[in-house]
Amino acid sequence: MSTIQGKVTLLSAGPGDLDLLTLRAAKALAAADILLVDDLANADIVTLAPHARVIRVGKRGGCKSTPQAFIQRLMQRYARKGLHVVRVKGGDALLFGRAGEEIAALREAHVPVDIVNGVSSGFAAAAGLGISLTHRDHCQGVTFVTAHMQDHGEPDWAALAATGTTLAIYMGMSRIASIAASLLDALPASTPAAVVQNAGSSQERRLVTTLERLAIDATAAGLGSPAVILVGGAIGESAEFLALAESAEGLAHAA
Amino acid sequence: MSTIQGKVTLLSAGPGDLDLLTLRAAKALAAADILLVDDLANADIVTLAPHARVIRVGKRGGCKSTPQAFIQRLMQRYARKGLHVVRVKGGDALLFGRAGEEIAALREAHVPVDIVNGVSSGFAAAAGLGISLTHRDHCQGVTFVTAHMQDHGEPDWAALAATGTTLAIYMGMSRIASIAASLLDALPASTPAAVVQNAGSSQERRLVTTLERLAIDATAAGLGSPAVILVGGAIGESAEFLALAESAEGLAHAA
Repeated sequence: MSTIQGKVTLLSAGPGDLDLLTLRAAKALAAADILLVDDLANADIVTLAPHARVIRVGKRGGCKSTPQAFIQRLMQRYARKGLHVVRVKGGDALLFGRAGEEIAALREAHVPVDIVNGVSSGFAAAAGLGISLTHRDHCQGVTFVTAHMQDHGEPDWAALAATGTTLAIYMGMSRIASIAASLLDALPASTPAAVVQNAGSSQERRLVTTLERLAIDATAAGLGSPAVILVGGAIGESAEFLALAESAEGLAHAA
Repeated sequence: MSTIQGKVTLLSAGPGDLDLLTLRAAKALAAADILLVDDLANADIVTLAPHARVIRVGKRGGCKSTPQAFIQRLMQRYARKGLHVVRVKGGDALLFGRAGEEIAALREAHVPVDIVNGVSSGFAAAAGLGISLTHRDHCQGVTFVTAHMQDHGEPDWAALAATGTTLAIYMGMSRIASIAASLLDALPASTPAAVVQNAGSSQERRLVTTLERLAIDATAAGLGSPAVILVGGAIGESAEFLALAESAEGLAHAA
């Protein structure tokens, strides 16, 4: 080991717009020597790190553009040179970002690690919809779950539905029809559901519907990754859902 | 309605340290005319709102210091005067903060509402422990759940345990023994568990243990509210837990 001690900051870039970064994240970026940037983070984040050498290491949706082992070697190499390496991750680094493996590898290599939290896209999606994730009339919590599992299996949708929590499903757009079908085995067809693509960014697109119509409406609207799928009674509090329910009722009365 | 249009910003103060606020939150605070501050937010947040009249409206742990209806009337009254009201909430406003009711009331009163996301204390707790909330070797997600339910009942701990997700339990310290007992009916005694009090602030205190010892160790350590209780395999990746497991193994070998 070198006697000059660098460090790695695992930095949460938030869901999109740069002003959703924390003040602490902005400080760390300003002090960065090396910036490793994920492709789920806003590309303009490099403007906040004027002194840093920028290395792009994205791997979107399972395609292996930069192997994890290589990223880890890069971080260690630069930190051992005494440099401040900032590893940027979309959303909050501690949710679905392989931070666990990176922390373990850095710890094993005796490289100090800082973690800077951020806003995960599920929270930004709720903000876009104007809802609480946990409206107490509807649920006692929220579950953030990835549809993209390590062993390519499926999460236990019945068990997740049985909790009664709002479900915030990440990386689920490529299999939205099968997810909706599984959830329909456990939840009423009228359960409010939503898709928020590019939550928290200027490209945000939202769809509010029912679980029964989720897959068909999302496909018709042309929504795709990156997006968060939300399912549960709390989504029914959004103005968009209330308008939908009202117009459905109006149509039913008119018929 | 007045012709001068004000607005209300529901602003997430994050878990503690002011530099965990987002840049957007700092801008909203700087522009605030009226600041309604929860007692779960860092009291120093008022320094970021130099032009605002500050009104304290906290109600910690169920004790009714300021009735919700009164807070809602205050927000509406000031917004109708054309003022920018910033309603500060600890953590992220959309998780366990009654934002749902406040948004609905403001919508009904035709008062525009902005929502500014933030870092919830469960994420800060994970950062303190140096773990991912969703290490893919252990789980497919994380469930944020409140132990403090509207009807004073208990969440369905068996159903929550059955998801296999990491559990991040908010407002659970006053009944930590009964929560642990319920979870022990569904999870192994050796399941890693942690308590992080004042996560993300300079007063942060952490305890890492097993589910079996959770209540007794938390009591012995004198940990109390506000704190997040974390339960699940992912917590076992923390350096503190690994050291604990190693020393237990060492003791077992020595015996």
